[in-house]
Amino acid sequence: MKLKALHSGIIVSEPVVVMNGNDCLKLGVGLTDRVRITGKTAAVAAVVISDYVSEGTAIVPGTLLLKCGSETGDELDVAYSEPPESIRSIRKKINGGKLEKEEFDSIISDIMAGNLSEKEIIALVSSFSINNSELGEIAYLTRSMAETGAVLDLGVRPVFDFHSLGGVPGNKITPIVVSIVASEGLVIPKLSSRAVSSACGTSDYVDTFCDVELSSESLLKAVRNTGGVFACGNQDYAPVGEKIIKAERPMGIDPRPTMMASIMSKKVALGTTHLLVDIPYGKGTKIPDMESAKDFSDNLIDLGTILGIHVECAVSRADQPIGRTIGPVLEARECIEALENRGGDFSVIDKACGMAGIILEMAGERDGKARATEIFRSGRAHEKFLEIVEAQGGNPRLSSSDLVPGSVTKDVHAKRSGLVQMIDNPSMVAIAKGAGAPGDTGAGVMLLHKTGDRVNKGDVLFRIYAENQGKLERAIDSARSRRPMYVSEDPVEPVPESMIVRRIPSKEMLDLIRFRSSGKE
Amino acid sequence: MKLKALHSGIIVSEPVVVMNGNDCLKLGVGLTDRVRITGKTAAVAAVVISDYVSEGTAIVPGTLLLKCGSETGDELDVAYSEPPESIRSIRKKINGGKLEKEEFDSIISDIMAGNLSEKEIIALVSSFSINNSELGEIAYLTRSMAETGAVLDLGVRPVFDFHSLGGVPGNKITPIVVSIVASEGLVIPKLSSRAVSSACGTSDYVDTFCDVELSSESLLKAVRNTGGVFACGNQDYAPVGEKIIKAERPMGIDPRPTMMASIMSKKVALGTTHLLVDIPYGKGTKIPDMESAKDFSDNLIDLGTILGIHVECAVSRADQPIGRTIGPVLEARECIEALENRGGDFSVIDKACGMAGIILEMAGERDGKARATEIFRSGRAHEKFLEIVEAQGGNPRLSSSDLVPGSVTKDVHAKRSGLVQMIDNPSMVAIAKGAGAPGDTGAGVMLLHKTGDRVNKGDVLFRIYAENQGKLERAIDSARSRRPMYVSEDPVEPVPESMIVRRIPSKEMLDLIRFRSSGKE
Repeated sequence: MKLKALHSGIIVSEPVVVMNGNDCLKLGVGLTDRVRITGKTAAVAAVVISDYVSEGTAIVPGTLLLKCGSETGDELDVAYSEPPESIRSIRKKINGGKLEKEEFDSIISDIMAGNLSEKEIIALVSSFSINNSELGEIAYLTRSMAETGAVLDLGVRPVFDFHSLGGVPGNKITPIVVSIVASEGLVIPKLSSRAVSSACGTSDYVDTFCDVELSSESLLKAVRNTGGVFACGNQDYAPVGEKIIKAERPMGIDPRPTMMASIMSKKVALGTTHLLVDIPYGKGTKIPDMESAKDFSDNLIDLGTILGIHVECAVSRADQPIGRTIGPVLEARECIEALENRGGDFSVIDKACGMAGIILEMAGERDGKARATEIFRSGRAHEKFLEIVEAQGGNPRLSSSDLVPGSVTKDVHAKRSGLVQMIDNPSMVAIAKGAGAPGDTGAGVMLLHKTGDRVNKGDVLFRIYAENQGKLERAIDSARSRRPMYVSEDPVEPVPESMIVRRIPSKEMLDLIRFRSSGKE
Repeated sequence: MKLKALHSGIIVSEPVVVMNGNDCLKLGVGLTDRVRITGKTAAVAAVVISDYVSEGTAIVPGTLLLKCGSETGDELDVAYSEPPESIRSIRKKINGGKLEKEEFDSIISDIMAGNLSEKEIIALVSSFSINNSELGEIAYLTRSMAETGAVLDLGVRPVFDFHSLGGVPGNKITPIVVSIVASEGLVIPKLSSRAVSSACGTSDYVDTFCDVELSSESLLKAVRNTGGVFACGNQDYAPVGEKIIKAERPMGIDPRPTMMASIMSKKVALGTTHLLVDIPYGKGTKIPDMESAKDFSDNLIDLGTILGIHVECAVSRADQPIGRTIGPVLEARECIEALENRGGDFSVIDKACGMAGIILEMAGERDGKARATEIFRSGRAHEKFLEIVEAQGGNPRLSSSDLVPGSVTKDVHAKRSGLVQMIDNPSMVAIAKGAGAPGDTGAGVMLLHKTGDRVNKGDVLFRIYAENQGKLERAIDSARSRRPMYVSEDPVEPVPESMIVRRIPSKEMLDLIRFRSSGKE
């Protein structure tokens, strides 16, 4: 059936075509059916019926029109489209069946092609049960996902990687970890992501001082020249993960099996052989307690074994922000200052050197943390950092003073004297987002005190940065309606000895020994 | 925000409000957010954004407007609506947590109130894994569902029931089973449903000769006077099941945990104490093989034990249609003819007497099938049937000759001589639906031969009935594009000894013995 594309000003989360009821009858399609619409190219959309649309015309969202290579007023061919075959596999999975690699391939390629609705993707991700013995299926899913994008072939082994599950604000350690590890001559092509629901992702703050969107060639070249990168990789490597997250986000779900597949598929695509996973645990993170952290680690390590990746996990403290800043420019500045000054907030330095140390041990070093700390304190990490910045198109003489946060600020003062009892991560994130982060790169929060500090009434507890007064007001409102920091005379537990609470090594230490005796070192 | 309700001619599967982007900005809502719209009453809907809609107005589907007690042109109040609390429980379940009764109550009441989207319902039903030890949770879900509608209190015990999982066309045994069982003085308030995807549900053919939509009072009265009914019950008892099925249908899923909860919730609401479940197995049914049938039975029996219902299962043949007709009037006629003639097609009589026999044995009878057959052959079942028909507002002198199928027919002839090798159920259903069943009650298919019959070239294999030429043509097209019946000289397995292939008794036979010695008999 030929229909004239009408007005494209409809925004929906998924492709739909709004058609007149009589046209639907003629075409033999009903609500929730799929139609294939063809202009210069073809695309699939769900049918919505409205007598608001005259016969012979169809309302098509702009993004969909673009996909068809058409514009408003063009004639489109509209035809019934069979539901994709892969729905059968999703049904099978929901009904308790086990899926084969080919079935995951077909599902994943339909997700990539936009043939499955968000409802169908949600059904798939909900049908996994981590309690089941499904690791083999998750490995299939991981491999299918890894095959949806580019594959990085560095031609060297081992390839190290570092991944944080996130959930703790201010976690600006990635460039430091990468710089330390690469200083030792190890290869660590670290690809991060931008914020999903947080105030600032690694790529958001790195983007303020060098390029994060690297082409495959630039990435290869940067890694070959420097050993490491801290770039952004979501679009190129296992890009289907983004589409799955897009379907999950409105429901606020991120079930472990697909979360694991999403993480590991990128590592497979990057050729990772050794992976350290940072698992921040506690309020606001994805992992509520140590027991879950241990379970999750075991699952991830076992999945790694199936995929041929040596995985270790480090459970880390997340009871207050890492460092003293939240927001792109502020976090970039704090990170670079730490490298320049070879020191800084305990939580940043201890966590970065601790994580880098575990990676060094995975590579055969004896006392990794001491070695990592030495590299950091000697200034070698800073040199390596500037080398990588230059390889990513940044200024090789970059200084922390180049980074200037938003000019509109508001200090929040202590209402009484005492000890800072706690800093509420979700509140701090909400305030930074209220101020405009991560879109407004200069927006964010700086903590002048952290848990356990003694403050006097009237002292500045934290400072809100924004790029304009409107958003500053919004952040102030957000701060007022919450309890971001709490001061009282109650005693506070002393500063922890280490930011890494527990290390969960792979069961496959033999693998490491085998690697060491194979003589690559 | 006040918006004027525009034109209601939009048909969507779920409530939406289409708003101008600027109004959305002002209200602080985005795509997939929920808004509460209030006219005389309030309802919740999802936001869709379109600049096709002018500022200050909103397109609202007619059903939603009705729910708000408003009409086109009325002013509606539109406000942001927090996602319902029960989404947390759904998330918890997806992430592998176990839910409590209160959490299921909150989910089910949100489904009833229309507060959860179909996506959220799909996520819930997909998150159950029958392989897990989740029966306790399914029992909670069942009880929560049972509490969403009416409760039948007959004031007697035991209360028997019979349920078929469906999937085999022509399964017209329910009125016969109920009539036999009620003839023995047992109580069997059987509530059936209309066709979902089949050509004819039990309520569809019963509706051609008596009322199926009975009020609670009429139902109680009918059961008290006659011992049995064969009415329709989906709207009144555990009605939330329908809403869940509505969300599942477009995806073609019906996972076992929610299927079990859906079946059993109605039984709980009806006060059932003893339930026989017919499990047709094989192509086109929900149960592919004997192993699945056994698994499913075990699960259902165990769920019954938790709920205090004595469940038995009977796995039945579904390799060809039951009896010789498909479609409302045709099935009604065949059913009544069997009762009048005290005989008929083997598959109908053997299955009906076999099922009724098991129920009689659940009630303490020694050789149930022999007893059931005796009741059927003696004409007592026919008398009881007419009594029930009258109690359901039908003609107590009802005759099979009162039922006249569609007047437009087409005979399909054998193209060669030989033995009927097989009859394809899905093809026969498609032909009957093509002819207009179940909406056109006179439409359907009559089989003049069944598997194993010898036919000569040119013999009529089956006859299509329709109420008009257009639909007859559609059915003929459907028959031509398929292979509904296949004739060749290959040998065919002989007619089975029994339609019930396997009986899976409850592990709780003690329960039965206890009941028998308690003296109700």
